[in-house]
Amino acid sequence: MRIGQAIDIHQLVSGRPLILGGVSIPHDQGLLGHSDADVLVHAIGESILGALALGDLGKHFPDTDPKYKDIDSMKILAKIYEMMKERKYHVGNVDATILAEKPKMAPYIQQMRQNLADCLHCSVDQISIKATRGEKMGFVGKEEGMVAMSICLLEEECA
Amino acid sequence: MRIGQAIDIHQLVSGRPLILGGVSIPHDQGLLGHSDADVLVHAIGESILGALALGDLGKHFPDTDPKYKDIDSMKILAKIYEMMKERKYHVGNVDATILAEKPKMAPYIQQMRQNLADCLHCSVDQISIKATRGEKMGFVGKEEGMVAMSICLLEEECA
Amino acid sequence: MRIGQAIDIHQLVSGRPLILGGVSIPHDQGLLGHSDADVLVHAIGESILGALALGDLGKHFPDTDPKYKDIDSMKILAKIYEMMKERKYHVGNVDATILAEKPKMAPYIQQMRQNLADCLHCSVDQISIKATRGEKMGFVGKEEGMVAMSICLLEEECA
Repeated sequence: MRIGQAIDIHQLVSGRPLILGGVSIPHDQGLLGHSDADVLVHAIGESILGALALGDLGKHFPDTDPKYKDIDSMKILAKIYEMMKERKYHVGNVDATILAEKPKMAPYIQQMRQNLADCLHCSVDQISIKATRGEKMGFVGKEEGMVAMSICLLEEECA
Repeated sequence: MRIGQAIDIHQLVSGRPLILGGVSIPHDQGLLGHSDADVLVHAIGESILGALALGDLGKHFPDTDPKYKDIDSMKILAKIYEMMKERKYHVGNVDATILAEKPKMAPYIQQMRQNLADCLHCSVDQISIKATRGEKMGFVGKEEGMVAMSICLLEEECA
Repeated sequence: MRIGQAIDIHQLVSGRPLILGGVSIPHDQGLLGHSDADVLVHAIGESILGALALGDLGKHFPDTDPKYKDIDSMKILAKIYEMMKERKYHVGNVDATILAEKPKMAPYIQQMRQNLADCLHCSVDQISIKATRGEKMGFVGKEEGMVAMSICLLEEECA
């Protein structure tokens, strides 16, 4: 077994869609980034890379590469899934938290979990997504950005 | 085995008691919240919910519910313990960190660990609590708020 | 098996060297601290202490003790390794993230991993180090400080 963790940070700006866990969420701001800036999917993907000691997201998917411009981050996660599978590991469980002052995430959590489970070829019961607020403090609390944190437990396939 | 993580954030204000890990700590400010705002117990409880993929603290204990007004957060943790037990899991170990600029936490750590071990029906050796400072930076360093982070390893009961 | 986590925070100031994972990194600022302020080694060391429920870094290596003034943090980690070994545990894997706006960490990551693996008597494949930026927000994004986060999985030695 191996464990991994990650944190990802993105600015909130006007004129961008807000996509979290592959779900388009109606909001007056969206996350800034080279890809679709899905901070949750980035954190979960990087925690898997971390568990496998394969380096960070930027190493594999550089934000200077035009190939990843505005890419659906689920496609990045699908590539990370392939890297995990090649090394004969699978997801034990993933637990992640979105730090965002607004909007309410509760209506979208179940769909995010389903999207992630589909992409990682596991059951929705193996994917946990939670949300918390910055309580008006820091860049999360002042609605300047969002953060996602993830940990994962990976299990080696039996021979 | 399953792992969970959580982060909880509360503002510091005058006129509230400071309660961490079920210990009342003498201080000129306390944490703002609907319950007793025990940020450490919230983070630990939510990490257990996360490991079990049961959703976040707000889902189970909404801060709009008068039932939880000023509630002792240890009562919330006791309910989470019951949810874990029903699903046939127990605590392997918990490791948490309090981020607070002041006061010194060291004199209270052992009591916090004991309170948490009692509530989670495990040994004090299975509960780790650490503290660190914000080094004068950010809302923790400027004494505007406190943060707690927790991870846990849960083990399934043998049949 | 036991899991641990830690977060460490240090201010960036002029006139100090920047040492991360035991590597001296050319930069116009360095981290402020009583020891060499190697925020990454502190986080990794404290996550091991946390997994073993031995208390935080400040309990074992107080920053008021002249013995630890400007000490190479790898020496602190070597002591933590001894504490782990005495309790018959070894590292399963470590996964850590450096949060820093600048400089680019990629050229130094492999050497950091090697230094940490040497100190913890494990293979470089058991040590993962990643880096991310604060995206111009918060004290990390404004280059006022750096943060490191770590988790670890420890395995008990077979008798």
